[in-house]
Amino acid sequence: MPAELRTIPARKGVAAPLQRGQHLTVVNTHGSQVVDCWAFNRADLVEFMSMEHCRVELGLAVPRIGDSMVTNKRRPILTLLEDSSPGVHDTTLAACDIYRYQRLGAPGYHDNCTDNLAAALAALGLASPTTPCPFNLWENSRIRPDFTQVIEPPVSKPGDHVLFRAELDLIVVFSACPQDLVPTNGAACRPTEAHFAIA
Amino acid sequence: MPAELRTIPARKGVAAPLQRGQHLTVVNTHGSQVVDCWAFNRADLVEFMSMEHCRVELGLAVPRIGDSMVTNKRRPILTLLEDSSPGVHDTTLAACDIYRYQRLGAPGYHDNCTDNLAAALAALGLASPTTPCPFNLWENSRIRPDFTQVIEPPVSKPGDHVLFRAELDLIVVFSACPQDLVPTNGAACRPTEAHFAIA
Repeated sequence: MPAELRTIPARKGVAAPLQRGQHLTVVNTHGSQVVDCWAFNRADLVEFMSMEHCRVELGLAVPRIGDSMVTNKRRPILTLLEDSSPGVHDTTLAACDIYRYQRLGAPGYHDNCTDNLAAALAALGLASPTTPCPFNLWENSRIRPDFTQVIEPPVSKPGDHVLFRAELDLIVVFSACPQDLVPTNGAACRPTEAHFAIA
Repeated sequence: MPAELRTIPARKGVAAPLQRGQHLTVVNTHGSQVVDCWAFNRADLVEFMSMEHCRVELGLAVPRIGDSMVTNKRRPILTLLEDSSPGVHDTTLAACDIYRYQRLGAPGYHDNCTDNLAAALAALGLASPTTPCPFNLWENSRIRPDFTQVIEPPVSKPGDHVLFRAELDLIVVFSACPQDLVPTNGAACRPTEAHFAIA
């Protein structure tokens, strides 16, 4: 595990640049935290890691070791090299947003992954014209044969990590999902911090 | 069935405005044609029908009769009122694009749903900053419990239709998918025209 861990604060987002060939570790520090993850071509943020393009290219709803996630131009952007968890992640569900929490009955403002993406990019002086569907690390979502879909607590454990290699110069963005009204982040509905490292 | 049918030409796209409350019929004229479908808020094209938001809000990967598809602001935009087909559609796969056909070995240019969306909007003097994941009417795609995903020929039959009610003033866009290298549009790999009507 790389030494220099950076924090993804509970309920918040953070962005960082990566160079092609660098390695990215994401750690589920407390074990049941979903981390929304985005990656953008650093030279052109209109090109980004696209879940719907990944599914076509991989023939998989969730990548396996060795698989490359692709952009909306179908170019590899992040390759999954290691996954110490059972490999249950989600590529199908939108980032939470203020509308989601309003519909769930939250009073006033509620932290959300959509705003976290925008704020994390803004901290680097960047903006995306759209909110791509995120790669929801450790989110435990299943589509059944009758097309019903459920979200259950993650099956990961404290300290689980995934390791990616950057295939482009890119900007990676994480949001430690602030969902505390349904058990996306575990039965306790208590969002936590997570960590990442670049080497 | 409404009288005034408009053609979605084989391999091409077309866009049309709808007013809130109007009804939209889409007909799978020859029975095995996938029709990529998009809907945009007419007053603000940055708000559009979003597959990843629909899945969260519906708890379903494919809508059922009475379900409303929602936008990226989680507002109803199209409600499914009728479906004479077995109800197998897809919300998970990206529109085909020139990169897809290049990767499949097509020489030179190949018609594709991504360019068809842009051209259909341009014909109305409009543009979208992004290519949302389409609602792929009649596309027969399944995600299995092991996360593998397959695309098989449609299970619809000639003349099958779906009927929607517009919940916003919107722009609807269709592309009769030009995929002829894999059996998305039937085992014969022969894309055809389809039709729609607004009433």
